[in-house]
Parts: sequence; C-alpha cells; structure tokens
Amino acid sequence: MAIKYELIKESKECNARLGKLHTPHGVIETPIFMPVGTKATVKTMTPEELKDIGAQIILSNTYHLYLRPGHELIKEAGGLHKFMNWDGPILTDSGGFQVFSLGHLRNITEEGVEFRSHIDGSKHFISPEKSIEIQNSLGSDIIMAFDECAPYPSDREYVKNSLERTTRWAKRCIKAHKNPEKQALFGIVQGGMYKDLREQSAKDLLELDFPGYAVGGLSVGEPAELMYEVLDYTVPLLPKNKPRYLMGVGSPDYLFEAVVRGIDMADCVLPTRMARNGTFLTSQGRVVIKNAKYKKDFNKLDPECDCYTCQNYSRAYLRHLFKANEILGARLATIHNLYFLLKLMENIREAIKEDRLLEYKNEFYRKYGYI
Amino acid sequence: MAIKYELIKESKECNARLGKLHTPHGVIETPIFMPVGTKATVKTMTPEELKDIGAQIILSNTYHLYLRPGHELIKEAGGLHKFMNWDGPILTDSGGFQVFSLGHLRNITEEGVEFRSHIDGSKHFISPEKSIEIQNSLGSDIIMAFDECAPYPSDREYVKNSLERTTRWAKRCIKAHKNPEKQALFGIVQGGMYKDLREQSAKDLLELDFPGYAVGGLSVGEPAELMYEVLDYTVPLLPKNKPRYLMGVGSPDYLFEAVVRGIDMADCVLPTRMARNGTFLTSQGRVVIKNAKYKKDFNKLDPECDCYTCQNYSRAYLRHLFKANEILGARLATIHNLYFLLKLMENIREAIKEDRLLEYKNEFYRKYGYI
Ligand SMILES: [Zn+2]
Ligand SMILES: [Zn+2]
Repeated sequence: MAIKYELIKESKECNARLGKLHTPHGVIETPIFMPVGTKATVKTMTPEELKDIGAQIILSNTYHLYLRPGHELIKEAGGLHKFMNWDGPILTDSGGFQVFSLGHLRNITEEGVEFRSHIDGSKHFISPEKSIEIQNSLGSDIIMAFDECAPYPSDREYVKNSLERTTRWAKRCIKAHKNPEKQALFGIVQGGMYKDLREQSAKDLLELDFPGYAVGGLSVGEPAELMYEVLDYTVPLLPKNKPRYLMGVGSPDYLFEAVVRGIDMADCVLPTRMARNGTFLTSQGRVVIKNAKYKKDFNKLDPECDCYTCQNYSRAYLRHLFKANEILGARLATIHNLYFLLKLMENIREAIKEDRLLEYKNEFYRKYGYI
Repeated sequence: MAIKYELIKESKECNARLGKLHTPHGVIETPIFMPVGTKATVKTMTPEELKDIGAQIILSNTYHLYLRPGHELIKEAGGLHKFMNWDGPILTDSGGFQVFSLGHLRNITEEGVEFRSHIDGSKHFISPEKSIEIQNSLGSDIIMAFDECAPYPSDREYVKNSLERTTRWAKRCIKAHKNPEKQALFGIVQGGMYKDLREQSAKDLLELDFPGYAVGGLSVGEPAELMYEVLDYTVPLLPKNKPRYLMGVGSPDYLFEAVVRGIDMADCVLPTRMARNGTFLTSQGRVVIKNAKYKKDFNKLDPECDCYTCQNYSRAYLRHLFKANEILGARLATIHNLYFLLKLMENIREAIKEDRLLEYKNEFYRKYGYI
C-alpha cells in the first residue's frame, strides 16, 4: 500500500479528527491544507520556502502538466518530484475538473472527454485510463480517479447519470493503475446536493475499497449552508480508517466547517490567487493592500503573524510593491497567505487535541469578522 | 566624511585596482557590480537572497521613487534602507538620466528640468536642489549629482554646453546637500566622446573635491571600441584616492574592459532585465532558455555555476517555467544572472590580487564566445 492513515484522536465536541497520513514522501499531519502548484510550481514560491512556512504536501494539476510540458517529459525528468525539486508528498488531481472548466468544445462520452486545449486549441482526449497513465508518469503520492464534477445547480437526473458514470470510470481507473504500491488512488464521491445520490455514490465507491476518499462537487457556487449540509450527511458515509479530502476549499470558514465535520485534507487556489491580487488573509480579516488607507501605514501587516513578510515589511511597503507591480509583492503576499492558512490548520490540530476546537473557531470568527 | 576609499593594490599588468570602500552601511570590496533595485526592490529578489548571492551594494532610482511612493513617504518610513529592509549600502542616482529618458515633454532650463510623469502625466520639476533633497530623504549612502547625460551622437557644441551646465549644477548640488557626514555625493564627469571636453569636465569637477567620481555619458549606444577609448583617457584624469564609478555597464565584456581601465564600480539593469526575458548569462555564453533545444535538456543551466538555480533545477524545468509564464522562472533566472556577475567580479578581484587579470579575461572571453 502506498499510504497509511493513522487515526490519532477523535474530537469529543464534533466530528473533527486528528491523524497522520504516511506517504512515500513523508508523513502528513491532518487535518491539513494543501497549497496548489498547478504547473509544477506553487506560484512565486521555491520548494524551500514552502517547507519553511510549514507546507506538508502540495497539489499539482494533471490537465495543465499533460498539456505543458507533457507528462512524458516529466517522466523522463525522473518524475514530478525531481522535475520541480520538491521531495515532499504530492497529490495530483485527475484533470477532470479542468477539462470541464478550462477545455474548449468538450464532448463527453462513456469513453472519456474530448476537448481542445485552452493554450493552443489543439484537440485532446482524456479517458479514465489516460488520466491514470498521466498521473503514473508524474509519480505523485496520491492520485485521483477521473470524475465528472456536476455543475451547480444540476437536476437530479443529470447528477444521477453523472455519478453513475463516475463510478464506472472509477473502476476503470483502478484497473488502469500501474503503480498502486507507490501511488494511492483516491475515489471521489459525487451526487451533487442530493442526499440519496451521495449515499449511492459513497456506497458504490466504498465497495471498490480505495485507500482514500474525496468529496467532490462542492464549493462550486452553492450557498455555504448547503455545502455544510451536504458535508453533514456525506462525511459520515466515509470509512474512519481512511483519509477524507474535500476538494476546492480554502477560505478560513470553509476549512473550519469542513474540519468540524470530519474532513482531513483540503486544497484551493484561493489564498495564492488572492495574494497575487494584493488581498491578504489576516487575523483581523481581509486586507486589500492597494486601499489608500494603507499608504502611510508603517505597521506590520498582521500583528499576530510571525511569517517572513510580517516580520520584515510594513503595509506601506507592501502597498508600494503592488502599486508598482513588483513581483516581490506577489511573493511576500503568497508567503503570508499560505503561512496564515497552514498556521491556522496547525492551530486547529492543536485545538482538536485539547478538545477546544469549537471555542477556537468562535474566537477566530469573531476576530476575523465572520460573526 | 560619509565614505572612505582604501586602495589595496594596483595591478602590475594594467590600470585595474583593488580597493575597499567604507560606507555607513558596510564595507564594499571593489571592483564591484551593483544590482539595480529601481523601485526599492531588486526585481523578484528579497534582501536576504541578495546577500546570499554576494551583493554588497545595490542601486535605486531617484526618479522612480520620487514619483512613487514619494520620497517624503520613504523618509517617514525611516529611510530607504528601512523601507525596503536592506541594511547594506545603497547608491541612488540623481534622477537626471530617467528624467531625460522616461519623462515626457521635458523642458530643460538652467534652473532644472520640467517634465511629465511617465506614470500619470502629472507635471513635475526637478532641479539640482530637488534631486539632492530627494536623495537626502532617501538616506542612501552614496548620492549622485544631478547631471545631463548627453545623447549619442551629439555635436561638440551641445556636449560642451551640457557639461558646463552639469558642472554648474554640481556646485548647486554640493550647496544643497544637507547630510554630507552620512551620504557621499559623487560628481559625474561628462564630455561625450570628446577628449578635451572630458578633460575640461574632470578638471572642473576635481576642483569641487567630491568624495567619489562617476564617468557618465557612456554605454548610451556608442560602439564598444569608442567607449573603451573614452575610458582610456578619462579614468586617468580621476584621483587615485577616490572611487570611480562607470554608470550603466553590466555585460561581462564591458565590466572586464572597465576594470582593466581602472573602474571600481558599475551598475546596469541588463542582467536582471535579461533574466526576466529568459536569457541566462553563463560561462559558455548566453542561453535563451525558451529555445526548443532545451525542451528535454535535463542538465544544469551552467555546469560551472554553483548558484541556487544551477544546483537545483534543470534547463528543461527552467524552460517550462518560462513557457508557462511562471514567476519562479524570473526569480531563478535573476538569482543566476546576478550571481554570475557578482561571482565574475569576485574572480576579477582575485585575479587582480594575483596579477593575472589579463589571462583570466582571455580565458573567460574564449569560453564565453567573445573571441
Ligand atoms: Zn504574515
Ligand atoms: Zn547559476
């Protein structure tokens, strides 16, 4: 087996849990947030910097790497770890989500998805077998089954057909997987916002005995309350002895609410994308650094943060870098935003250990301005 | 006195010399190349990274900082060192060159230069007094007299009038300078490509007894041989006990030829600008990383370089980053290109010490492909 999930503790207050996920490239303490390195780089960061801020695992995107530079090139380079110089764990998605959201003129059949590249318009076909072949070439520690993430809203009929195809595709992924001893293949539970469909999807996928399960099809535009409701009834369907991964979630409130409901892993481009636009996540809420009020603000960005950025630079300097379009601005913002979320997850793990997660969550929400 | 130049050794082979320049923010070993941090940041780099690659002093631009974020803001922040978190020596230019090259609708009078901002079109006026006021606010260790850099080619009459005004402006700069104990004001020898005018400019400025002298008006489009000729007769006009700074020079051949003729300091945006375009300076000559031949080149960039980039990444990965427009590409290229030039200057200093600079120069030129 490529990975092993070790359940350390279950919260006395809620469904949150502490765990350790053993992978071929190291142990991950869960619950954890995974920074996204779409194109074999977490934008603006070196691997050493990622380690310094506490990143334990990063995510990379199959769709992008397949199109450029190509998975065969990465395989020749010795795999994704070596190519990008990151020796920690890597999770790759299946490419499914991007094929649907970025690919042009896509055509979905039982066999797979035909689409045109968003880069040069060239025609491509990705099937469950192709997705696994690409991910096998990349050599990531955790790979994902090729699925369809139904848009929100979708009617019951569409979601049911889609999840049933996703289950058939999941079986083909298992069959195609060449390297189960080194790469753990996760199944993805779909079913949209329909309880019985989530139950059907979970039941069918559990029979396939994946080493880990993701909850897909959330954070796709539905109201927060609806997402929490779906998590409320979906997470308990998943086995306790395996990691549970919520895809596409990265705002502090979503992370808290997911963890409280039993999620172990999450990823999102939000903190890095916001950083490049000059929006900082801080203990006192979001700071849009280009705002005029920070022009002569010589204080540190976040008084409670001890990241490299907060230790060394003022809000006025950060604002100057963004006004002047300087790359260092995007770097310093990315360092802070990722550190902020990784530190948040560390605090969350500490709070679970001491059975005071709900109290910590309330305290955070009050300061951040959520409540 | 803000600075002190210590002459360590004169070459037995040529006019090259070894020295130490003592400044309020540390000692600089000369000859040295100065990375350019136009807008209070050496593009893509942190101050710690600059130190790691051996940067001893950086240059920043008065014109840009005056327009954005404004010198008064930087003064309020505690000066440029504190604002940008660089505690080593800083040299600022006078703004003269940028006013002429970037400012719009400029109008030169004896009093100064009126121009419109290249950012928002707003009207501004910079005089010698204003330039010094700005540089006093920035608090840089070395500040430059406000001059006019005559374009190439210019007729004798134009150059003569221009250099005479530059001398009159130099006197006003000295008078306006509020902080000579902490900031050393350098004079700038002009005179274009005319030997007698260079002599006139040097003679007049030497009478003003500046703590250091720059050679201006070179590397402005003239043939390399002509620049070398001007250096041949201009550098010997400058005092031995003061630092000599050649403005706007940063290619390996220009640096070698300048040092051989007795130059101690040089700066240029070339290595950092080329880096952001994906062109690498290497011991074997320039490498344009986007070229198809590097697609599957898994070797290190420069076999003789031990910078962070060369130690950790392949040409194929660097090419991928540039093809995918990833910021990390610009970072890794900037680290390498600056390291390459700083290491070159270190080797040059070593060669001067051992009286084998000309041999080292020949060896470098052969490998690089200059000869
Ligand atoms: Zn911070
Ligand atoms: Zn290098």
